[in-house]
Amino acid sequence: MSTKIQVISEGGVTTPKGFLAGAIYSGIKKKSPGALDLCILYSEVACETAAVFTTNQIKAAPVIVDQDKLNKNRKSRAVVINSGCANACTGVQGINAAVETTLLAAKKLDISPNEVLLASTGVIGTQLPMPNMKRGIERIVVSREGGKELTRAIMTTDTRQKSIAVRVKQGQNEFTIGGTCKGAGMIHPNMATMLGFLTTDASIESDFLDSSLRKAVDVSFNMVSVDGDTSTNDMVVVLANGTAGNAKIDRNSILADSYCHALDLVSTYLAKSIAADGEGATRLIEIRVCGARNLNDARMAARTISNSPLVKTAVHGCDPNWGRIIAAAGRSGAEVVQDKADVYIGDMCLLKEGTPLLFDKKAASDLLKNPEVLLKVDLNLGSATAIAWGCDLSKEYITTLKAQQRK
Amino acid sequence: MSTKIQVISEGGVTTPKGFLAGAIYSGIKKKSPGALDLCILYSEVACETAAVFTTNQIKAAPVIVDQDKLNKNRKSRAVVINSGCANACTGVQGINAAVETTLLAAKKLDISPNEVLLASTGVIGTQLPMPNMKRGIERIVVSREGGKELTRAIMTTDTRQKSIAVRVKQGQNEFTIGGTCKGAGMIHPNMATMLGFLTTDASIESDFLDSSLRKAVDVSFNMVSVDGDTSTNDMVVVLANGTAGNAKIDRNSILADSYCHALDLVSTYLAKSIAADGEGATRLIEIRVCGARNLNDARMAARTISNSPLVKTAVHGCDPNWGRIIAAAGRSGAEVVQDKADVYIGDMCLLKEGTPLLFDKKAASDLLKNPEVLLKVDLNLGSATAIAWGCDLSKEYITTLKAQQRK
Repeated sequence: MSTKIQVISEGGVTTPKGFLAGAIYSGIKKKSPGALDLCILYSEVACETAAVFTTNQIKAAPVIVDQDKLNKNRKSRAVVINSGCANACTGVQGINAAVETTLLAAKKLDISPNEVLLASTGVIGTQLPMPNMKRGIERIVVSREGGKELTRAIMTTDTRQKSIAVRVKQGQNEFTIGGTCKGAGMIHPNMATMLGFLTTDASIESDFLDSSLRKAVDVSFNMVSVDGDTSTNDMVVVLANGTAGNAKIDRNSILADSYCHALDLVSTYLAKSIAADGEGATRLIEIRVCGARNLNDARMAARTISNSPLVKTAVHGCDPNWGRIIAAAGRSGAEVVQDKADVYIGDMCLLKEGTPLLFDKKAASDLLKNPEVLLKVDLNLGSATAIAWGCDLSKEYITTLKAQQRK
Repeated sequence: MSTKIQVISEGGVTTPKGFLAGAIYSGIKKKSPGALDLCILYSEVACETAAVFTTNQIKAAPVIVDQDKLNKNRKSRAVVINSGCANACTGVQGINAAVETTLLAAKKLDISPNEVLLASTGVIGTQLPMPNMKRGIERIVVSREGGKELTRAIMTTDTRQKSIAVRVKQGQNEFTIGGTCKGAGMIHPNMATMLGFLTTDASIESDFLDSSLRKAVDVSFNMVSVDGDTSTNDMVVVLANGTAGNAKIDRNSILADSYCHALDLVSTYLAKSIAADGEGATRLIEIRVCGARNLNDARMAARTISNSPLVKTAVHGCDPNWGRIIAAAGRSGAEVVQDKADVYIGDMCLLKEGTPLLFDKKAASDLLKNPEVLLKVDLNLGSATAIAWGCDLSKEYITTLKAQQRK
């Protein structure tokens, strides 16, 4: 049975059938031309739902409310998302505001409050302005065309809109996965909130929806961030509404592999967009680690290199300073044997089995000027590999964060 | 028995009796007015010696050579230190260069090569220029006045000289501890090499010298850095030559407490100097965590806050954004209970038991303008406390690292 995978680059969360979205400016964010700060993602029918949340012990009110809801019932039909206020560290008042938001949205959409999920991003410690939320929710109009508006409404320090869809045709079956996210890859990318919303019109069995999401997040969003090092609001949620009409996909299904492949494509595209949109970043850096003793080692080494400010500034300055790369691997916790490791910029080998090679510095520096920079480390200890993404570190990072509006 | 502790702010490694030092410009660093790049610390008699080294699996040649030497014999009489070249990732040639350096210094000083330790700081992956090392070592003149020159010679991106001495008088006993270090507190402070040299004319029993050094480093240098997250060259060494004439101090000695106290004073002063000398830093940040369940939790929380680029940029921008502080604690790995934690800037409480307080934003912002900024978190879960130090993060950080000369 032939499988065809089509990337729809202008696609998003409303590309799969049965999903609608809408957004509005409600006055939570500072006003600017075209600003949007409140949006709703809506499905015409109930969706199997799975989500991963921040591991931070300080959790925003929407995270607490969503986790509680999904623990009881893995069905949903809508997600209400606001930017400009994280509703984190807001005490009982914050929880009440989150609950009230679900009631307002349920009334507006004529669904059960149990079918409404929430996500927030913005400043910590500020209460949600409920009059604005109420007026905004009442006025939002959802439509099949609303995906782009939703993508804009969830942005904070993001400079680029991030969305995509992938269509799978396999035999008589056809289904689509769409996605959008917000997040700007920083020094520790995940210290800024990362929100991801994935939709599919495929019919997916509940446990498989959950396990495939976790696997996809592990090789995508978690490789621009560090496990356990997340913001108060981080979440990635997937809604599967089954309107494509395929038989329910579980892990033994003939469609399971192509669903996972398409989900990885969407997630990886979005994760790379976050890294590339680092605050002040001018280049995307892809770090490939191979020859690691095991997968955990490969992941730790790749992520430590991608987070190293010394590596980031060297790339920004086009300095082929491979010492910073191997030193980051050496302190990552991964097993590294000094006289076995190789380091490459692109395909140019700079360090071979721990010994520096003579290399063309001008050519190596030129490789670091590309908009996408590839750094490779071969630990030569085993066969595990991992890929992580980061960005260079420029002065604009400081300017952005220092001047970031508290509202 | 009365104890008097005197801080000698202009003191350094040659303030304790019997220690001499000297430095020279040998052409390893780029030439600049007054540049020094090679120095020797020398004791008139053999010293009990203890050291802590980097935990990075990629170790510089001087670290490998020193560790091997101290494993066999904990006596030394001299340390040869160069800046401008780390002699790290330099393969067999680098080890040979390190061994040759000890031979050259031993010949010059008429001592055994086994009594010579080494330290290097600078660019990774460049070979030590041995003709320069040879000429330099032959020409260095050590003297009682040489401590200041040694402090200058070990600097790389440091903007301030860091040295101090502390004199202890207890009954009939008098001894002195001197110290100097190099290192500039960065985003991850310890990713730049940190070298520390401590000297004392007290007579110290070998195991106590080692255990007291480890304890002092744990509450000082390790609180501006993160365990396991060190450069290829980091080391702190202490030499005790016994010329003060006191009875040998061991852990049961009547002088043990005052020795440890003085050692902590010297180490903490030097560690804070590193944090304050952050690349581009304008302010020293002291983070005090109390009420932690255990010491490890307190240390993790304090260090994570001190390393948070979001906290660093908020302080730089004088933004009392307490959400970034508590979010850093929440992802540190320490146990944090959302509705128990308090956050303070100076003595001003901004978050009480997880609920934001109304506070005077102008006054809070003014507190962040001080050259020394105090941030406090009370986890209200136990009685463990820890203090860490960091610095704010400014644009100059990027400029410095981007433009850093490879030689």
